[in-house]
Amino acid sequence: MKDLNVPYKIYLEEKEIPTAWYNVRADMVNKPAPLIHPGTLQPLSFEDMQPIFCDELIRQELDDTTQMIPIPDEVLQFYKMYRPSPLIHAVFLERALDTPAHIFYKFEGNNTSGSHKLNSAIAQAYYAKKQGLKGVTTETGAGQWGTALSMACAFFKLDCKVYMVKVSYEQKPFRREVMRTYGASVTPSPSMDTNIGRKINEEYPGTTGSLGCAISEAVEAATSTPGYRYELGSVLNQVLLHQSIIGQETLAACKKYGIRPDIIIGCAGGGSNLGGLISPFMGEKLRGEADYRFIAVEPASCPSFTRGRFVYDFCDTGKVCPMAKMYTLGHGFIPSANHAGGLRYHGMSPILSQLYADGYIEARAVEQTSVFAAATTFARTEGILPAPESSHAIRVAIDEALRCKETGEEKTIIFGLTGTGYFDMTAYENYNNGNMTDYIPTDEDLEKGFAGIPNLPL
Amino acid sequence: MKDLNVPYKIYLEEKEIPTAWYNVRADMVNKPAPLIHPGTLQPLSFEDMQPIFCDELIRQELDDTTQMIPIPDEVLQFYKMYRPSPLIHAVFLERALDTPAHIFYKFEGNNTSGSHKLNSAIAQAYYAKKQGLKGVTTETGAGQWGTALSMACAFFKLDCKVYMVKVSYEQKPFRREVMRTYGASVTPSPSMDTNIGRKINEEYPGTTGSLGCAISEAVEAATSTPGYRYELGSVLNQVLLHQSIIGQETLAACKKYGIRPDIIIGCAGGGSNLGGLISPFMGEKLRGEADYRFIAVEPASCPSFTRGRFVYDFCDTGKVCPMAKMYTLGHGFIPSANHAGGLRYHGMSPILSQLYADGYIEARAVEQTSVFAAATTFARTEGILPAPESSHAIRVAIDEALRCKETGEEKTIIFGLTGTGYFDMTAYENYNNGNMTDYIPTDEDLEKGFAGIPNLPL
Repeated sequence: MKDLNVPYKIYLEEKEIPTAWYNVRADMVNKPAPLIHPGTLQPLSFEDMQPIFCDELIRQELDDTTQMIPIPDEVLQFYKMYRPSPLIHAVFLERALDTPAHIFYKFEGNNTSGSHKLNSAIAQAYYAKKQGLKGVTTETGAGQWGTALSMACAFFKLDCKVYMVKVSYEQKPFRREVMRTYGASVTPSPSMDTNIGRKINEEYPGTTGSLGCAISEAVEAATSTPGYRYELGSVLNQVLLHQSIIGQETLAACKKYGIRPDIIIGCAGGGSNLGGLISPFMGEKLRGEADYRFIAVEPASCPSFTRGRFVYDFCDTGKVCPMAKMYTLGHGFIPSANHAGGLRYHGMSPILSQLYADGYIEARAVEQTSVFAAATTFARTEGILPAPESSHAIRVAIDEALRCKETGEEKTIIFGLTGTGYFDMTAYENYNNGNMTDYIPTDEDLEKGFAGIPNLPL
Repeated sequence: MKDLNVPYKIYLEEKEIPTAWYNVRADMVNKPAPLIHPGTLQPLSFEDMQPIFCDELIRQELDDTTQMIPIPDEVLQFYKMYRPSPLIHAVFLERALDTPAHIFYKFEGNNTSGSHKLNSAIAQAYYAKKQGLKGVTTETGAGQWGTALSMACAFFKLDCKVYMVKVSYEQKPFRREVMRTYGASVTPSPSMDTNIGRKINEEYPGTTGSLGCAISEAVEAATSTPGYRYELGSVLNQVLLHQSIIGQETLAACKKYGIRPDIIIGCAGGGSNLGGLISPFMGEKLRGEADYRFIAVEPASCPSFTRGRFVYDFCDTGKVCPMAKMYTLGHGFIPSANHAGGLRYHGMSPILSQLYADGYIEARAVEQTSVFAAATTFARTEGILPAPESSHAIRVAIDEALRCKETGEEKTIIFGLTGTGYFDMTAYENYNNGNMTDYIPTDEDLEKGFAGIPNLPL
């Protein structure tokens, strides 16, 4: 029987919050490939990006040599409202699994946005404010990123214009109202506000929208409105940089309390959480100072790492954004309608893609009913109702802990619990009612997505 | 300008969690009046209550002399999953109000139940388990208490049967699914499972239920099923006892960090949060060791303290429960349909009622649009989206801080932030859309409720 008289929650003190983000690109020998312009196929320059992104964020996007980038004081003050986040020793889960493994999770859900997204949102809002902008635009699907950016903009008194995929806008009014409570304007996409929105509404009357379309509208709104820029919550190098706060805190807590992880596990959609969690540990591995196993977990229904191709592809379905070299299922790939667990992006962070291609990361694809089974076990033992996305990591953490039970190994496992599932109860309802099914695309299904990838001379 | 380089969140260490609940009745000269049997008008004995409540909880209900009651180890282990809760220095709210006041709040919302209710739920589930019971029943309106009890029962592997007011069951499916994820069975009330449910369905075809009816069904189910008991989330002495953990931690944090509150503010529905928060401070006041102002905040639309009567009344609409001496609007009182902010109970904890009658507590009634305005200010500055209930306390905390701004006084204000509002976005939506209205019952409205109070020779 596990000893329950140990500290469960490991909090750093507020003064121990790291004061710089860690830029893993500085320690990579094979740097991630640059974003390229779809017309010229040339790497995007600072000037190319200036109409879309804030200046300082472009500098961060392009900087693959500076190892530590100081966190501005104003951002640190905001971080102190909800950070440091706890590193929690999962003693009740260990006991339920009867495993010799030691399981810890870094919990990023204890803030009103409900996830780690706030870590980058506040940085992006800060740089927009510092540049003297009036506001920012973005897109959101279910609303996690939109909520985070709304909170960040309220803090810095910036306008925030969110294009929300119409079907979510109508079916998930709660997140929409959280955003509005924080003062954001939320527009169902496709809207009649933008050229691309009007065009799509005309071509597909009654369409309920897509993330690709919402991105296109948000970018158009930013570039056509003086004093606005566009902000994005995942995939980009700058986002992984900001999210390194997760890993920096985790590493600091491990060093302070003598925890040495054997395996670090995170779910992977666009890669912001996984990249943030593992970056500083990856740095140690890249520099030859320590060794860790890293496992990226993705849905079997949207398997970019495990079954995708490592090529240049568009970042959005609407092809208005730059192209990135990444593991991709093709920008036209859309997960099956039965897919409930988030992580539905067709591509993957270029940084993580390069690290995976170079053999530094393992990847595993899991099916959603097994993910919700793990989520339920976790909720009942550890008391936190996890987001479906995070539950992918829980699934593999449990699998690894059960493997330790077979072998008798006392491995230490850390996983990222990115958020809470309070706004995902429709998916839980399907699972509770036994109505959830699994879907694994056939090779033929995937070929359709691959067929849309442009065949570039790169 | 306020100094922002101070710690925002004051956490005790896990080992500093208080190991005993504080029973304020021990220090009261005028004890709260006992529950009485509606037939005999005699105080309820241990044996009277045995068919309904767990034995140990009855002992706690009746014990008005033992000052400290040890918290069982198993309950303390569960507390460590989400406690100590932080005492947060509201530096950003202070800055926004430009007040010399020092504002702190004790935040009980960082757990999956989303509120302080879990503090008593886990204790009640533990005593049921210890007694060898198979399960417990309860009722829930919007679902906060039902969620908390479901989590607690999952932890101790007890059956949990929740009667949920039908209109909430249908219109608020998210909370229902959280309960089901934790393994509870959730039945819309009135149901066809119980005599009282069948009777009400027959008399009022198509009724969408009420809390009074759900209580009656839960009590019937508990008393008619071998191995079951009924559990309640507020009003009772035992609940205030368990909730004293809130105040115990707050007092410990104040002593550790040299904070001396002038005013302590809490919202009051049935009284569990307010009673829990203020108990240990009230103890100091009752014993003459310190002085504090205590302010109970209630909705103007359900003003039991400020406009109710201090008499014996039924605890439930259906009159199946015992009678309590308390501030009451009459057990038939139902707040106006436009009332969105919770705290809709017609009565009040007998302990708090006695303390209020004896002049130890002030009370203030606030209107709901001003409550949601305070909630929005708080969300945008402090980053936490508050529950409507908790926002009543925020309203008065802000009012007191603004008064300090006028007078220049540097008062220290502590208020209880009982929970988060993630499941209350429909009310926020009404507020955001400008559709929220206020309602203050007329004296004639109140007379109708008072008319139902039995005229007892007590």
